[in-house]
Amino acid sequence: MTRVTDIGEDALVSRLLAQLPEAPAELFVGPGDDCAVVPFSESEWQLLKTDAIVEGVHFLLEENRSRVGWKAIARVVSDFAAMGGRPRWFLITVGIPADAAIEPLEDLYRGMADCLQTYGAALVGGETTRVASQAGLFVSIAATGFVEKSHLLLRSTARCGDAVYVTGRLGGSMAGRHLEIQPRLAEAHWLAGRGFATAMMDLSDGLARDLPRLARASGVGFSLDLASLPCHDGCTAAHALQDGEDYELLFTCAPHFAETLLLQWREAFPDTPLTCIGRMVDADDSMHLQGGWDHFAPASSA
Amino acid sequence: MTRVTDIGEDALVSRLLAQLPEAPAELFVGPGDDCAVVPFSESEWQLLKTDAIVEGVHFLLEENRSRVGWKAIARVVSDFAAMGGRPRWFLITVGIPADAAIEPLEDLYRGMADCLQTYGAALVGGETTRVASQAGLFVSIAATGFVEKSHLLLRSTARCGDAVYVTGRLGGSMAGRHLEIQPRLAEAHWLAGRGFATAMMDLSDGLARDLPRLARASGVGFSLDLASLPCHDGCTAAHALQDGEDYELLFTCAPHFAETLLLQWREAFPDTPLTCIGRMVDADDSMHLQGGWDHFAPASSA
Repeated sequence: MTRVTDIGEDALVSRLLAQLPEAPAELFVGPGDDCAVVPFSESEWQLLKTDAIVEGVHFLLEENRSRVGWKAIARVVSDFAAMGGRPRWFLITVGIPADAAIEPLEDLYRGMADCLQTYGAALVGGETTRVASQAGLFVSIAATGFVEKSHLLLRSTARCGDAVYVTGRLGGSMAGRHLEIQPRLAEAHWLAGRGFATAMMDLSDGLARDLPRLARASGVGFSLDLASLPCHDGCTAAHALQDGEDYELLFTCAPHFAETLLLQWREAFPDTPLTCIGRMVDADDSMHLQGGWDHFAPASSA
Repeated sequence: MTRVTDIGEDALVSRLLAQLPEAPAELFVGPGDDCAVVPFSESEWQLLKTDAIVEGVHFLLEENRSRVGWKAIARVVSDFAAMGGRPRWFLITVGIPADAAIEPLEDLYRGMADCLQTYGAALVGGETTRVASQAGLFVSIAATGFVEKSHLLLRSTARCGDAVYVTGRLGGSMAGRHLEIQPRLAEAHWLAGRGFATAMMDLSDGLARDLPRLARASGVGFSLDLASLPCHDGCTAAHALQDGEDYELLFTCAPHFAETLLLQWREAFPDTPLTCIGRMVDADDSMHLQGGWDHFAPASSA
């Protein structure tokens, strides 16, 4: 028997997906990007996403449940943003220990409703189910969204030579920032509409884990200028690389657009930093990063 | 503090949904039916559904994981059938204890893949997350489906005087039948296309819990002929009412169609029993049933 902690999360997902038959032709993007992409209309793709947060892993018992509800929704909004799209219909599945109190659950729903309204989405269904008393609350979100076909941005389309950008500042999520996610929906929409970005994803597991994913999906490597990383106050480059839960945009852009991009960005989003942190290189010349968030990190590298 | 077990599942869901803002106008059917119904194209609605199964609640540690995977998908296929629709795109979120072995998880995915292929659907994404070691496996399914607008069947449209029908036989799920779900997709599609049914749902929590839900949603009552209930071998009417996880279709039909319905049904589905088990009556004259499956049954009525 092999334990999941023997191989880590990415290898686990690969082994599970290997059990599935070949994807149908009409599936435009399947497992591996921020959302799945399926046909909707002549001009739009539909985006599909699920995401879960678990008490004791993504939030703690004592944390304000309304803010936990905000986080549960905001993480998914960030995934739609990362594809250049917008969120629309949400369903929620809550696994509840039988001895749970109702009032904190009502707070959870109020926080979710608040976030849904802020980003123009709505809850349309879901279910509640019982889990073991020791299990803690399990909140699983499923959502659909939409993206104009000409705006769709993937992880797999970065090109060797592209500059790498990140929005906002990184690091320090565990100091409480992880409950205050402000998905970069407006910024992502702006980027997607202007054609600057060649590839994009959101930063959820830390730059050290997510940038290699983008590079691998694109069949290229990366070179990172660690001194340039935009860090939150009190954070070092190590925090920026490892902490995770930044929910900032990571994207690539052809180098000849760099000047125009920065100029127009500062005008459109004077309050959102945009930083060039490196460039995409040939896969053989890639830097190697370790760390970042892995639910099933092998003991040796956790 | 009120505990969820103080009020039970239906009251819990009502209190949670009360935290949400008013539903947007384009949402055709929101929480409360088997699936949510949202706009798709001129001729079709999109159906959205989430469903979860939990180790220790919906399946046991020692049960064959490939059959558990089949069940996880089949439950959702049954919900699409209950609306007159068809399943299409699935996403899965799996909460995995960190000490779990990989091979049973591969079996789980093989069982899911098998069921998806059987019913013309495909897995397009999802995620894995860690849960506490004592929590047990948590499998949350999210799916989209489609239904021709003229075929959509709801819970809320039964009329006083309608006859009540159930497909197949009921009871005995815990004897192992709960892992052998064969969703009535063909039968449901046939019913929806012929316009016989005035309202429909699938039986997941037991007739004693589900029939009152259909009646309540329709603003009517019901009268049940207990002697007529079609029971599995070794099961009594009490099993048929209480056991749950039958995944048969429960539907209503105008009484003047009764004869035609039965005649045509026997020709189309000679191997699937169809039984008239009662009729819808005025809400004030309704029978009252107790029991069926409630994740958070108050201690007094569990």
